[in-house]
Amino acid sequence: MSASGGAVSHDPAAVVRAIVDAAGRHVAPLLARTEERLGAAATGHGEVLGAHAGETIAAGGKRLRPLLVVLAAGPAAQDEERVVRAAVAVELVHSATLVHDDVLDEASLRRGRPTVVARAGAGMATATGDLLFSRAFAELAAPGGRTEALRALSAASSALARGELLQRADAWSPTVTVERYLERCELKTARLFQAACELGALEAGDSATGATEALGAFGRRIGLAFQLLDDVLDVAGPAERTGKHRGADLLDGTITLPLILARERDGELASLDLHSVRTPAEAEAVCDAVVATGALEAARAKALAMVRDARGELPVLPLTQRRALDLVAESVVERYA
Amino acid sequence: MSASGGAVSHDPAAVVRAIVDAAGRHVAPLLARTEERLGAAATGHGEVLGAHAGETIAAGGKRLRPLLVVLAAGPAAQDEERVVRAAVAVELVHSATLVHDDVLDEASLRRGRPTVVARAGAGMATATGDLLFSRAFAELAAPGGRTEALRALSAASSALARGELLQRADAWSPTVTVERYLERCELKTARLFQAACELGALEAGDSATGATEALGAFGRRIGLAFQLLDDVLDVAGPAERTGKHRGADLLDGTITLPLILARERDGELASLDLHSVRTPAEAEAVCDAVVATGALEAARAKALAMVRDARGELPVLPLTQRRALDLVAESVVERYA
Repeated sequence: MSASGGAVSHDPAAVVRAIVDAAGRHVAPLLARTEERLGAAATGHGEVLGAHAGETIAAGGKRLRPLLVVLAAGPAAQDEERVVRAAVAVELVHSATLVHDDVLDEASLRRGRPTVVARAGAGMATATGDLLFSRAFAELAAPGGRTEALRALSAASSALARGELLQRADAWSPTVTVERYLERCELKTARLFQAACELGALEAGDSATGATEALGAFGRRIGLAFQLLDDVLDVAGPAERTGKHRGADLLDGTITLPLILARERDGELASLDLHSVRTPAEAEAVCDAVVATGALEAARAKALAMVRDARGELPVLPLTQRRALDLVAESVVERYA
Repeated sequence: MSASGGAVSHDPAAVVRAIVDAAGRHVAPLLARTEERLGAAATGHGEVLGAHAGETIAAGGKRLRPLLVVLAAGPAAQDEERVVRAAVAVELVHSATLVHDDVLDEASLRRGRPTVVARAGAGMATATGDLLFSRAFAELAAPGGRTEALRALSAASSALARGELLQRADAWSPTVTVERYLERCELKTARLFQAACELGALEAGDSATGATEALGAFGRRIGLAFQLLDDVLDVAGPAERTGKHRGADLLDGTITLPLILARERDGELASLDLHSVRTPAEAEAVCDAVVATGALEAARAKALAMVRDARGELPVLPLTQRRALDLVAESVVERYA
C-alpha cells in the first residue's frame, strides 16, 4: 500500500511534469501563463487581500484542475487567452473552497502552511474566499468571455456549496449510505473536474467540436475517483504522505466510503458512536479497524472502476491529447497505489 | 430626528409602493417576477439548502437593489427576462453577503428572524452564502446572458469582499480616516448599487444607449449615501426603528463616520479605547456622546450632498423613469429624516 511499482511517481510535481511532457509543446507555456495570472489575481485588490489571497494561491498544490482545462482544450485551441483564463478561474474557485473549508474545519495547516483562518481569523478568511470566488467569475467575464463558460463555472460552484451543505448535514451521521456519499463526492469534487474539462473543451479547435460533453463526463468520473481515493488515503496514511494524521475525516465527523463499507462488515464498528472518536490516537485505532475489514480494497476497486469508465468516456482526440488525458487518469490511480 | 415631515413615509414597504406607482406600469410585474424567481432560486438545490437559503431570501428586506435594476432598465427594456435575472442576481449577491456577514459578526437576528448561523452554525451559513453567490452568477450566465452583465456583477462582488476585508482590518482601529471610511463604504455598499443600475441600463431600450455609465454613477452615489445614513441611524436609533440596539457598530469594532467626526470634536471620545466598549449600555453611552458633538448632523449633511450629486448624475431619461429614480434618491434621504 505504500510502495508503487507503477509507471507514475508519487511525487506530484514529477507526475505533472511527465504529463506535461507527453501533452505537447503548447501545454507548458499555457500553464506558465496560468501560474503568472494566478499570482496577479491576488494583487491589485488592496494590501489586506494581497497578503491572504496571495499566500493562499502561492501555497499552490498540484494545479490538477488547470491542467485538465489546458489538456481538454488540446493543441489547437481557438483562443489561448481564454484557455488561460478558464484555467485560472477553476483554480480560484478551488482555492476559495479550500479557504472556506478551513474556516469550517477550524484547520490550522493546509499544505504545510498556516491557513488563512489560523493567520487572520474567520472573518478575514470568509472574505478572502468570497474574493477568490468573485475573481474567478471576473476572469471568465473579461471582454471576449463566453456565457457558456460562466454557466459551467457557476454550476460547478453551486454544486460545491451544496456538497459542503450536505457534508455538514451528514456529519457524524451513522446512516449515510454509499449513494449519499457518492452524491456528496459528485457535488464537492467531481463537478469542478467536470467543469475544468468542459471549459477546456469549449475552447478546443474545430477537430474536437462536440466533445465537450464527453470530456465533461471524463472529468466528472476522474473527480469522483480522485475523491474516493483521497478518502482511502485518509484512512490508509501514512501521515508523511498525506501531511495530516490518519483519520482526520473521522475527527471532522465526515463519513467516507471506507468507513461505510467497514461498518457493513464489522458489527463493532457499526455500533461505534462516532462522536466518541475525539483524539488522533482514537481515530488511528478506528482506521486500523477499518483496514482490517478489507474495506480499503473495496473502496479502491470502486475508484479504479471509475477511472476505467472515465477512460472509456474519452472521445476521439488527437493522439498526444488522448495520451495526456490517459496519464491524468493513471496518475489519479497511481498516487494511491 | 425621529418624526418626518417629508413626502415619503418611514414604512419601507409604503416607500417602495410609492416609487413603483410612479415608475410606470411595467415595473410591478417585473418586481413580481423577480420575487417569484428569488423564491425558485432557493429550491431545486437539495433539501438542506432549501431550508436555509429559502429562509434567507424569504426574510426579504426592501429589495432596493432589484428595484434599481428595474428602474434603470426603464420602460422599454430590450429583454424583460434578462432584467428579471439581473434583479434576482443582485439581490442574491446581497443576500449572500448578509449571510456571511452574520457569520463573521456571530449575529443571532437579522430582520427580526434568527440568522442562518444562529439556526445552523457557521459551516452551514458559509456554505449557504457560497451557494447564493453561485446562483447569482448562474442567473446571469443563463442562455441569452451577456458577459458585460457578468463583468459588472463580478466587479461588485469582488468589491464587497474587499470591503469586508477592509472592515476586518480596520476593526477597533483609532486611526481610520474619513477617506478610508468612504473607501470601505464604496466597496461594501456603493459598488453593488452601481452594478444594479448598470445591469438595468444594459437592458435599457435604444433611447437610453450610452446612459449605462451615468446611471452607474447615480447608483454608486446613492449607495454611498445609503451606507452613511445607515451608520448615522446606528448611532441615532431609536432601536424600534432599526431593529437593533444603538451602537451595534461600536460593539463590532466598526468605525463609522459619526464616530470619526465626533472624535475630531471631543477629546474624551478621541482618547477612548474602543475595546473598552463592551455592553449595549456602554455603547449607548458612547452614542450619546457622539450625538452631543453634532457629528450626526455633519454626517447627514455629507450624505445629503451625495444624494444631490447623484440626482445631478442622472442622464436624460423618459420622464416617469427619471421621476422614479428621483424618488429612490429621496427615499434614501427621507428614511433618515
